[in-house]
Amino acid sequence: MEKKDMIYEGKAKKVYATDDPTEVIVSYKDDATALDGLKRGSIAGKGVVNNKMSNYLMQILEKHGVPTHFVKELSDRETLVKRVSIVPLEVIIRNISAGSFSKKYGVEEGIVFESPTIEFSYKNDELHDPLINEYHALALKLATKEEIDTIKSMAFKVNEVLKEYFINLGIKLVDFKLEFGRLPDGKIVLADEISPDTCRFWDAKTNEKLDKDRFRRDMGGVEEAYQEMMRRVFGK
Amino acid sequence: MEKKDMIYEGKAKKVYATDDPTEVIVSYKDDATALDGLKRGSIAGKGVVNNKMSNYLMQILEKHGVPTHFVKELSDRETLVKRVSIVPLEVIIRNISAGSFSKKYGVEEGIVFESPTIEFSYKNDELHDPLINEYHALALKLATKEEIDTIKSMAFKVNEVLKEYFINLGIKLVDFKLEFGRLPDGKIVLADEISPDTCRFWDAKTNEKLDKDRFRRDMGGVEEAYQEMMRRVFGK
Repeated sequence: MEKKDMIYEGKAKKVYATDDPTEVIVSYKDDATALDGLKRGSIAGKGVVNNKMSNYLMQILEKHGVPTHFVKELSDRETLVKRVSIVPLEVIIRNISAGSFSKKYGVEEGIVFESPTIEFSYKNDELHDPLINEYHALALKLATKEEIDTIKSMAFKVNEVLKEYFINLGIKLVDFKLEFGRLPDGKIVLADEISPDTCRFWDAKTNEKLDKDRFRRDMGGVEEAYQEMMRRVFGK
Repeated sequence: MEKKDMIYEGKAKKVYATDDPTEVIVSYKDDATALDGLKRGSIAGKGVVNNKMSNYLMQILEKHGVPTHFVKELSDRETLVKRVSIVPLEVIIRNISAGSFSKKYGVEEGIVFESPTIEFSYKNDELHDPLINEYHALALKLATKEEIDTIKSMAFKVNEVLKEYFINLGIKLVDFKLEFGRLPDGKIVLADEISPDTCRFWDAKTNEKLDKDRFRRDMGGVEEAYQEMMRRVFGK
């Protein structure tokens, strides 16, 4: 599969066309941004970790009946995926209070919820990805009711599978962000990535942060945290 | 019913104890605040309009099966209501895009939604009443699932009744904020007020604003708008 024109460059990934109009190549960068783009930097090796971890997790999810955009890992940083039209809703699942949730609602980090929460952000850089609810998303025609129901049910399923998977590696899955895409026939699949950029991972014993919060909060040990997650997932 | 100690003073109302521990007296002020308290002023006669309009609308709602805190109008500015413990969720129903919705999601005012939207804000001055969804409200134990379901169903019923009521007076009910309270036995009733302070009213023909937006946006004709709403409702 040959890389053709770059069709999109995001904060952490580039996307290239291929000979096949239904497939694209995602290339993971080491670039990192945080705090709505105010903080910029680079995390050495991050692209490799995110690419390989995301592909591995998507294959686990496929086995559990969650359709994803994953087709084939091409190299350490590059993966062939199905071309989708992204639903402009970031989907966040939370098992434990942290980050913007704690700040916004004035509660400490680390509260374990009785049931996971789900929320949507309207994917719109100019508006700074505001929190949005299902009624608003419908009113703005960002997705149909059926799509939103499918996305919610898939997101909760992803949480079930990954929470269980990570706790067996000694990792608490605190919260994470998912994105979904539409295939040409309208089918919804999990897209984007699942990585320390998009999840909060805490060591189950020490609560040590093993994710992008180390970068966001200038905690140091950023590269090491990404490598530690790689080691936990791939056992090496 | 005798007024005893003042037990609460809000931005637009005072609440007094009575001899009966299950009932309180609400006294409506002319004071007005807006923009999260940054803007302060007074709207002559507002307290009378809001008291009388709110009481009248609550009685209409009672007839349609929506339980409210209303007991008895005592004077132009004072009303006896059931003492409730307020559920810390502001409930906003929108029929047409306007205000914070338009700003937050980057759309013009005046878009008529196919279905009304509902949203919750966490009633918390320190946190500036942030938007919150049902999952968050449950995680933070602000209300039970049953209470949230009851509140949603009551809020949509209020919208149905009031939208129809106001359009017959030549007024579009654009959006409005409700608050609900728990009676000692746990029953949920509509509380707070329904007035030009808490609703957006647009003249059905001219789209002229007949509500607190005239104050928020320094449009002039503020007192006149409140009096016009009074005239439409009471026909004098």
